[in-house]
Amino acid sequence: MGVKVLTIKENILGANEEIASRNQERLDKHRVLTVNIMSSPGAGKTSLILQTIDRLKPEIRVTVIEGDIASTVDADKVNQRGVPVIQINTDGGCHLDANMIENALNNLPLEEIDLLLIENVGNLVCPAEFALGEHKKVMLLSTPEGDDKPYKYPLMFTEADVVLVNKVDLLPYLDFNVNTFNKAVTGLNPDVKILPVSCQTGEGLDAWLSWLEAEIKETKKRQTGR
Amino acid sequence: MGVKVLTIKENILGANEEIASRNQERLDKHRVLTVNIMSSPGAGKTSLILQTIDRLKPEIRVTVIEGDIASTVDADKVNQRGVPVIQINTDGGCHLDANMIENALNNLPLEEIDLLLIENVGNLVCPAEFALGEHKKVMLLSTPEGDDKPYKYPLMFTEADVVLVNKVDLLPYLDFNVNTFNKAVTGLNPDVKILPVSCQTGEGLDAWLSWLEAEIKETKKRQTGR
Repeated sequence: MGVKVLTIKENILGANEEIASRNQERLDKHRVLTVNIMSSPGAGKTSLILQTIDRLKPEIRVTVIEGDIASTVDADKVNQRGVPVIQINTDGGCHLDANMIENALNNLPLEEIDLLLIENVGNLVCPAEFALGEHKKVMLLSTPEGDDKPYKYPLMFTEADVVLVNKVDLLPYLDFNVNTFNKAVTGLNPDVKILPVSCQTGEGLDAWLSWLEAEIKETKKRQTGR
Repeated sequence: MGVKVLTIKENILGANEEIASRNQERLDKHRVLTVNIMSSPGAGKTSLILQTIDRLKPEIRVTVIEGDIASTVDADKVNQRGVPVIQINTDGGCHLDANMIENALNNLPLEEIDLLLIENVGNLVCPAEFALGEHKKVMLLSTPEGDDKPYKYPLMFTEADVVLVNKVDLLPYLDFNVNTFNKAVTGLNPDVKILPVSCQTGEGLDAWLSWLEAEIKETKKRQTGR
């Protein structure tokens, strides 16, 4: 299957929240757990998605939306796994918004999807402000970025349901204090789940997959009960 | 000396380019070489500034403007070196703009400054679009971010006068191909200067300092000739 490319100009003035609610209703109706994955450039969003695809139970039908300013580098990698993928190119826009996602949903067979992973534009600032209609916000902080990032980019850490601390395999070579980081994050967001992982070595990914599969099960149950 | 904190709301609609030209005229008049330092969060902007302060010839009078969404973490570190620093907090804004810099310049004794280093908000997207009045744009790409970043964030690499490849001490532990990266950057920007450095070990910083001190000399000469 080919990579679809949607080139969508940033809709700054649109009623983002309203479109996001509409997206979520639609995703709820079709029981599609939708996860918005955010991080700085190069923190490991694409690696996480590829590892997740490889490790998910085979009966779970996953689809990916790739958000990038330019290129289809990431979508090509997902496509090579035989997983359906839509590339959104934002033409310079620094985040995805609900309107872009609505356009993508119009191109997806939602009744055939259990899990929709959305890779946002690499940016620790703007994506945190724009709801897409997702059920869960997951952020990656890679250890080389430093343990002081929650102080400097507080909104992202406040908004996240899960913080994945990626590249823990590099910890021996870095001045990154895990306790300092965890305290800063839980100070901003006491209910957050923090999971240390390495998308390079696979360390910690079982816990991430367990969380994700439990959420997928929850989504199915919640909907059946309606 | 204390850290001055200016809290300035993002001026989205202002004539950014016009204000940037006005800033540059003012900086030219006072012969202040001004460098706009940009990168992803955690790529090493603050470490570069601290290393630069420590290694600059003592007769060069340096001042720093720190741009952050929140906190004075970075400004405090600069201030500990005894270097004058102004902290701009953008209140959520994802980049510095010329208006914020004009406000900062109003608070600086420009006749007593040879080099003004501006640390932009950690973001590989938006800061590239906003001229501040700087003479040179310097970007850091840290090796853990990956060698594919020029394809995904092309504007930043196109706009830069110098690309510092930071954290080269981590290369043995990463899949980062220096040739792939250099080719991608020069493909976008044939005139760019690429310098490999480690702000941790000090590797490569002599070349950075040489470039910077030559530019400072050039700025003084150019002005004297008017």
